[in-house]
Amino acid sequence: MNLTTRAPDEEYKIVIVVRTDLKMSSGKIAVQVAHAAVNCAIMAEKKHFKEFNAWYSEGQKKIVLRVDSLEELYKIKAEADARTIDNCLIADAGRTEIIPGSITCIGLGPSTDSILNIITGDLSLL
Amino acid sequence: MNLTTRAPDEEYKIVIVVRTDLKMSSGKIAVQVAHAAVNCAIMAEKKHFKEFNAWYSEGQKKIVLRVDSLEELYKIKAEADARTIDNCLIADAGRTEIIPGSITCIGLGPSTDSILNIITGDLSLL
Repeated sequence: MNLTTRAPDEEYKIVIVVRTDLKMSSGKIAVQVAHAAVNCAIMAEKKHFKEFNAWYSEGQKKIVLRVDSLEELYKIKAEADARTIDNCLIADAGRTEIIPGSITCIGLGPSTDSILNIITGDLSLL
Repeated sequence: MNLTTRAPDEEYKIVIVVRTDLKMSSGKIAVQVAHAAVNCAIMAEKKHFKEFNAWYSEGQKKIVLRVDSLEELYKIKAEADARTIDNCLIADAGRTEIIPGSITCIGLGPSTDSILNIITGDLSLL
């Protein structure tokens, strides 16, 4: 999503939504979330530098939320795609804990609070 | 650390070492680790593009390890600095859970297994 305007009190953020049904350890979750955050950041730096720079210079806000199934994650992706919000699904390399190729989380943004809250505002913090 | 040569079977990785004594939630840990990973990636992209590109194109390997105190984290930073391994300490903005400004983790690299294992090889996975 390319936003050229925003409310003065709005921050840019990256939201990462994690599947809890995979029963991953804290360390495994952290790696998946880091994959998503780096992908979102590098993608935005290349494609939407203005949004990247706003997010990066404002403290690189990141929010981690949860869903309980792959179906919910796909639903979020579909809603993000429909609104042209940049997003990336993360598939685990599968070296430990879970089945190789399992989709573990999705990264969204960076975009503004008001945009991202449309599709993630009802989700709980991890 | 700028490595111009490496063994054929060596991968580049970013290692993030997290303090467990702060008793952070899984979500909080994930955000801190993501901060460190993004900082390491962006820093390397600007300063050491060859290392960044090797790491990025090889699958962006990330390893999350643990220490039990701030002193241990500072010791790792001192060892990284002494070997000119790129690193970044992460201080939490403190909006939730822990005291504002608390140092939560350190990111190291991207660099090769053999280099990073010198200073983190004895640590346990988170």
